[in-house]
Amino acid sequence: MAATLGELAARFGCELVGDPALVIRRVGTLASGADDAITFLANSQYKSQLKSTRAAAVILAPGDREACPVACLVHREPYLIYARIATSLHPEPVAVPGVHTTAVVAASARIAPTAEVDAHAVIGGDCTVGDGAVIGAGTVLGAGVTVGAGTRIGPRVAVLHGVKIGARCIVHPGAVIGADGFGFAPDHGAWQKIPQVGGVVIGDDVEIGANTTIDRGTIEDTVIEDGVKLDNLVQVAHNARLGAHTIMAAMSGVAGSTKVGKRCMIGGGTVMINSLTICDDVKFTFHSIVTRSVDEPGTYSGHLPAEEAAKWRKNAVRFRNLDEMAERLADVERQLAKLEKTSKDPDGRT
Amino acid sequence: MAATLGELAARFGCELVGDPALVIRRVGTLASGADDAITFLANSQYKSQLKSTRAAAVILAPGDREACPVACLVHREPYLIYARIATSLHPEPVAVPGVHTTAVVAASARIAPTAEVDAHAVIGGDCTVGDGAVIGAGTVLGAGVTVGAGTRIGPRVAVLHGVKIGARCIVHPGAVIGADGFGFAPDHGAWQKIPQVGGVVIGDDVEIGANTTIDRGTIEDTVIEDGVKLDNLVQVAHNARLGAHTIMAAMSGVAGSTKVGKRCMIGGGTVMINSLTICDDVKFTFHSIVTRSVDEPGTYSGHLPAEEAAKWRKNAVRFRNLDEMAERLADVERQLAKLEKTSKDPDGRT
Amino acid sequence: MAATLGELAARFGCELVGDPALVIRRVGTLASGADDAITFLANSQYKSQLKSTRAAAVILAPGDREACPVACLVHREPYLIYARIATSLHPEPVAVPGVHTTAVVAASARIAPTAEVDAHAVIGGDCTVGDGAVIGAGTVLGAGVTVGAGTRIGPRVAVLHGVKIGARCIVHPGAVIGADGFGFAPDHGAWQKIPQVGGVVIGDDVEIGANTTIDRGTIEDTVIEDGVKLDNLVQVAHNARLGAHTIMAAMSGVAGSTKVGKRCMIGGGTVMINSLTICDDVKFTFHSIVTRSVDEPGTYSGHLPAEEAAKWRKNAVRFRNLDEMAERLADVERQLAKLEKTSKDPDGRT
Repeated sequence: MAATLGELAARFGCELVGDPALVIRRVGTLASGADDAITFLANSQYKSQLKSTRAAAVILAPGDREACPVACLVHREPYLIYARIATSLHPEPVAVPGVHTTAVVAASARIAPTAEVDAHAVIGGDCTVGDGAVIGAGTVLGAGVTVGAGTRIGPRVAVLHGVKIGARCIVHPGAVIGADGFGFAPDHGAWQKIPQVGGVVIGDDVEIGANTTIDRGTIEDTVIEDGVKLDNLVQVAHNARLGAHTIMAAMSGVAGSTKVGKRCMIGGGTVMINSLTICDDVKFTFHSIVTRSVDEPGTYSGHLPAEEAAKWRKNAVRFRNLDEMAERLADVERQLAKLEKTSKDPDGRT
Repeated sequence: MAATLGELAARFGCELVGDPALVIRRVGTLASGADDAITFLANSQYKSQLKSTRAAAVILAPGDREACPVACLVHREPYLIYARIATSLHPEPVAVPGVHTTAVVAASARIAPTAEVDAHAVIGGDCTVGDGAVIGAGTVLGAGVTVGAGTRIGPRVAVLHGVKIGARCIVHPGAVIGADGFGFAPDHGAWQKIPQVGGVVIGDDVEIGANTTIDRGTIEDTVIEDGVKLDNLVQVAHNARLGAHTIMAAMSGVAGSTKVGKRCMIGGGTVMINSLTICDDVKFTFHSIVTRSVDEPGTYSGHLPAEEAAKWRKNAVRFRNLDEMAERLADVERQLAKLEKTSKDPDGRT
Repeated sequence: MAATLGELAARFGCELVGDPALVIRRVGTLASGADDAITFLANSQYKSQLKSTRAAAVILAPGDREACPVACLVHREPYLIYARIATSLHPEPVAVPGVHTTAVVAASARIAPTAEVDAHAVIGGDCTVGDGAVIGAGTVLGAGVTVGAGTRIGPRVAVLHGVKIGARCIVHPGAVIGADGFGFAPDHGAWQKIPQVGGVVIGDDVEIGANTTIDRGTIEDTVIEDGVKLDNLVQVAHNARLGAHTIMAAMSGVAGSTKVGKRCMIGGGTVMINSLTICDDVKFTFHSIVTRSVDEPGTYSGHLPAEEAAKWRKNAVRFRNLDEMAERLADVERQLAKLEKTSKDPDGRT
């Protein structure tokens, strides 16, 4: 999907500095871009690479234009414009309509004529696959699954019965959507399974990473609102709700019945325990252990950075006695207060 | 599987308050239950929802019966009784006997006539699939796998050669059982693989979550005893043993050769390092890092809850100097002791 | 692959103590070995088991030979020699050449005649599968994937378009290689996807664990160098590079664009944030949160071991006030310094 620089400037609302006839065919990096590649500068950390770039053109902010030795597209949001231009140069593959002969599709399933169903896919009864949707090779849809228009489900995904997936979603390989939530009642030393009869409802424009798991609800549905983005190996437990445009990085998880607000950013490895309510616009840095509801937008943290082992160990050992240390400090303060009194009043007279 | 309230009371040993002819068709929540739904009250946190419930009936403890505005089933263990009644109303699907035409089944495999083998499943030589077992779509069983009666293996599961799975187990999609354990000998800057020739033996009534991995043993077997429940994305390394009715929540893991006792409860994200022995009836709260064997039943913890980032950062920085802080505190205590002595005995006489 | 003790001693350069005609058929443990089994003693922790071993022979270090009641192979590196002998006794399965009739292979794919392609595998256009390689049941290779000679890809793996995998690799079930990296530009409260147009390049002799995910690069490639070993449920984000012979234990992860050196050892659950550079020969103990680049080989740690819950809680609560504690300690030191001055110079004269 090549385009000239002039076309890109016009289509994406940038100021053009350079030859509008320059043909751009791909994206590249500042450091290694080729003569038909466009790149971007959005982080001042990389500014030193600008002057030696071999890219054909750079998308950058007004303040960086003077320093750019090649053509540039100037915009106040260079990263966003880069993302849009990159998408126009490297569009997502479109569905090749048709059902592969090895796919097993239930007679009652409704597959749009413009949808693509790949080899060895299995589609259960009463499924609906929308216009231009792609069901990847070896993917299994249980009975009654709905896949919205333009949604692309990668190879080897499992979507269990009754799950609803909106339009323009991307589901990466290995994801499992709608397996039973993890619910058991204690039964005198053993466990009685609690049927998980709720579903999973996924909005539009959601992306779900490789080998991520989203469990069905116990009674009501697990809900993923529009525009949510989940990285790989993320766990979403039964009855959770993720608000629109919330983003969860790899290996993070949300336990049962926790409700996360809109536009939250959940760092990699962060875990939220069950039954919390997290308000909109909360950011957890990576590997936070979230044990309390949050009703104030802002940034929250919870990790201790690794250190050279001998130093770490010394501190970790002290941590084991931190409470005692605190008691000793309080003792010291009390003694000091007494001493001060004595020193001001050595004979105990007032 | 509808039932009248009278039938449920009789079958599950509850005292009935209300109309025995009331027909119950499903479970519901206290807040949103419909007029053919039964729900439960087991946690006093939700008691305030009881008076406005729209459910047809509520399972509750004797102390809550007076407050219930609708019919109720009274029992001292309302959550357990709810689990049992829910299972009777929403039973697990039963096997539809037969092997799908697209399944590839080795001639030497023994599939019970009452078992169900779904589309694109692959079953290796000398496998045994028991009565009423289900092998889901796209699931692969290596050679010599045994699947017990009534066990349901979801779609897209991989069970490697020689794994034994007991009766009435549930294996969710994406689980991998019997891949090689992670064993290598250092070989002068590289690694020599150690063959993993043990197996995996799984008892009865075990549930294994989506995308969970259980490795085969190095020489002997990895063992999962009866009634163990594993959530999603759990890792069980080679030679581990999980005692009967132990439960591991999502994203928890047990490293090589660690033996976990019976009825343990492992919180989400908790990791046990290798070669430990954990006795029966131990509970680890979520995200504990377990580095020592435990020989005393009880509850163990290991996480620091996330805080507002600025506050967290201040404490985290102090942690990096905790050992020095402890030294300074000891210094202060010594000086103080000296000062006290001096103040009592200002001239140094004794 | 049975062998006599004499043959093993000669082939693996060991000193033989005992009957060279003894036939060894398998590996065993020190505690439970059978009369045709060989085992090893490499860790003095297990030396007490030596005298009662029922194995036919033991591989051990020179210092342990006197204590061995059965035949032994003496070598200074008993664990490495054990790994090699075990591999000769229990060799990896070799490819059974041929493409299963249910596999779907694009006409343009080049499959070596000695390669094995199992049931329901799907191989895209322009793929290359090398000599003696195995593509497991239900595995999907996207277009243009290269699989080197002797590489064994387990069942139910997804390898996306253009990924290059070297020779003699092992990829365990459920792994996903080459899914999109997790990249989005903020778009006024929503997210604009950034196309992930790089690939994944994997060297020779790499092992990739079950359900592990390796994302494709954003512009350039994600790179896994020769001899890297990844355990289960590991996450490798876009643009990461793992140096040769680096090893990552289960549930560890490396975020985007982080470069890890050669021969590093990454403990289970350890997470490295994005854009770091870790030099060669760094070891992180398990569950370290790595937030800074490391330019000094050595061992680094970052976990706090779990404790009995009541004790843990007390310390965790103090941690929340650690900064205040540090301030109080500094106050105490200042007061003490003043007091000391006063006590030496009670009248304030200098």
